Amino acid sequence: MTDTKVRLGIIGLGAEGGMYASLISEGKVPNMQIGAISDILPEKKNRADELGVPFYEDYIAMIESGSVDAVVTCVPHYLHPEMGIAALDRGVHALLEKPVGVYTKQAREVIDFAATKPELTFGVFFNQRTNPLYVDLKNLIASGELGALRHSSWIITNWWRPQGYYDQSNWRATWGGEGGGVLVNQAPHQLDLWQWMCGVPQKCFAKLAFGFRRNIAVEDEVNALVDFGDGATGHFMTATHDLIGTDRLEMLFDKGKIVVEGSKTVTISRLKDSEQELSKDMSMDDVRKLFMGQLNASELYETETTEYDSVWGQQHSTVLQNFAANVLDGTPLIAPGPDGINGVRLANAMHLSAWSGEEVDMVDFDEDRYLVELNKRISDEGAFPTRS
Amino acid sequence: MTDTKVRLGIIGLGAEGGMYASLISEGKVPNMQIGAISDILPEKKNRADELGVPFYEDYIAMIESGSVDAVVTCVPHYLHPEMGIAALDRGVHALLEKPVGVYTKQAREVIDFAATKPELTFGVFFNQRTNPLYVDLKNLIASGELGALRHSSWIITNWWRPQGYYDQSNWRATWGGEGGGVLVNQAPHQLDLWQWMCGVPQKCFAKLAFGFRRNIAVEDEVNALVDFGDGATGHFMTATHDLIGTDRLEMLFDKGKIVVEGSKTVTISRLKDSEQELSKDMSMDDVRKLFMGQLNASELYETETTEYDSVWGQQHSTVLQNFAANVLDGTPLIAPGPDGINGVRLANAMHLSAWSGEEVDMVDFDEDRYLVELNKRISDEGAFPTRS
Repeated sequence: MTDTKVRLGIIGLGAEGGMYASLISEGKVPNMQIGAISDILPEKKNRADELGVPFYEDYIAMIESGSVDAVVTCVPHYLHPEMGIAALDRGVHALLEKPVGVYTKQAREVIDFAATKPELTFGVFFNQRTNPLYVDLKNLIASGELGALRHSSWIITNWWRPQGYYDQSNWRATWGGEGGGVLVNQAPHQLDLWQWMCGVPQKCFAKLAFGFRRNIAVEDEVNALVDFGDGATGHFMTATHDLIGTDRLEMLFDKGKIVVEGSKTVTISRLKDSEQELSKDMSMDDVRKLFMGQLNASELYETETTEYDSVWGQQHSTVLQNFAANVLDGTPLIAPGPDGINGVRLANAMHLSAWSGEEVDMVDFDEDRYLVELNKRISDEGAFPTRS
Repeated sequence: MTDTKVRLGIIGLGAEGGMYASLISEGKVPNMQIGAISDILPEKKNRADELGVPFYEDYIAMIESGSVDAVVTCVPHYLHPEMGIAALDRGVHALLEKPVGVYTKQAREVIDFAATKPELTFGVFFNQRTNPLYVDLKNLIASGELGALRHSSWIITNWWRPQGYYDQSNWRATWGGEGGGVLVNQAPHQLDLWQWMCGVPQKCFAKLAFGFRRNIAVEDEVNALVDFGDGATGHFMTATHDLIGTDRLEMLFDKGKIVVEGSKTVTISRLKDSEQELSKDMSMDDVRKLFMGQLNASELYETETTEYDSVWGQQHSTVLQNFAANVLDGTPLIAPGPDGINGVRLANAMHLSAWSGEEVDMVDFDEDRYLVELNKRISDEGAFPTRS
């Protein structure tokens, strides 16, 4: 490590790994430099040569080379945990791509291992947590100003993926190669943000459709309910077959309401008092006036709409910079690795509920049962090894 | 009956009955006149005298008086079926207020009885079915232009009711007096419209909260999923404690999408071909362009937004006029009585799912089990008789 820069080893130089290499080489992550690159495809060495950094076909060799202080895992989801463990075990910091694992048992392994290495930095790449829109909402909700959550709904269907996208690789959208569909590949950011803002769900019931409007084994359609406890509930709907696409999040609280459209337009309504107090204080005469249209309920709250700019590329640089800062001076992580399990559990619970037709307990989540059911589907597919 | 006007007997001169009396006496229902009025409160005779029509404390006496050709039942929900049967049994046409019954067993009794009297008109007061916005959508969907349904979500929380509303009468928001909360009193119109447009659900899972933010026995909070069959699903969320209120309906189809906001603004997107065809036809090169932002998916569809006027009072006159026209010349009913059971079954299934924690079969709905569970709650309440 130099005094001010973390030397990052990029594992997997595909779309994501390539983007991070460009961001860092263009100086967009001031406290980071590329230490080395590894990829199982030998032809990727050309890009490493262009960047003037060592290249390894074997990522373990890269980790052991002494040329990297940390790694980022830009590889298929199933590999994230084992690569994280391999790095941490050799004294190298680990930034895992989302999801932190395909199933909770696997996610727990890397999280538990990282707990034995408190001196090392262990993060997960939730770049959406650096989006100022969601940071502002997280802070507002955490401040308690809006009170307790009553209910929420997030419709996030602007993940349109044509059949050709799925036909690109034989591992894509398979149980054995990817471990799921839209819940594992496209929606993990929203699954993370949702539980980050609303709280970790306690129960889940979901209707999923597998290969619904695409020729794939896994889910391309999700309509799910969760129970946040204390009567608060949530709805989550996602799909990869909605060409028009919707991104609409609503959260109702005791003292107000938040509606987000297109991850861009935020409308916050703040009640002048808690809703239950306003309800109690309304006289019978006012109730009659309300029904006659002579009293306007909108006098009881104020609404403010804010437009946020799109900050796409920026977010990835910010996550890398925050990760490096944690390594260098202990700056708190935006997305600590252990946080990654919540979204994995939620995706797993949605699968398990759809498979069983039952509401699934998430407080005491049966991760062995999930793995058994997942392995059944991997076996039936017959193309990839089962998992343990 | 006169040659051109149906003489209506209004049972119950409360808010609704009073409104219908005014509409008819003001000439807003050209093919209808008030035949008589009945109410258990003797002081309501004053209004009957003003209108110059006979008054009865006993509705049976009114039905048998020969002064009415038809009745409308503006009374607590539980009474709708028995009053409908009493009228039809005496050769008098029946227009039932929604819901057509509180539980399906009760709804089925009046529907089965009406089937034995095909010469009589039997309707249900779904005034929202005359709303031009929903009529247009129903026709568009029925035409098949948009293809099969994929999923839907309706958030309808602009039913804010303060505590004082519930404290008006001792039967309100009780199991024995009303048989439920927002699902029975406020949301029946949307439950009807939803299944009218999307199809009758086959299964239902719901999270309800009873007395969540109001001091009542019944549900003031609903978050539910339904299965329409063939992988199509729906989400329905309603509440009486959202002061700000949302009314947003989304329906995704194979060839397009409908979004309705505030029961007023309709946005229809029509794909240039079915979504699956567009998905198949997209080359790998186009897929790459799409991901690089060089291809705009919005070129594959056209979007049109229409604003509808509010038509609140109008709707009630239209239902009355359509009902009278069916009596006079057989004009098809907008809302035939038997249609009323679908919304009742959906509300019952949501209750039963929330009570049992299970997904409920609606094709072979266990109406006896529902009644047992409802009666348990009526018994526990101890204020009203159980039902059979």
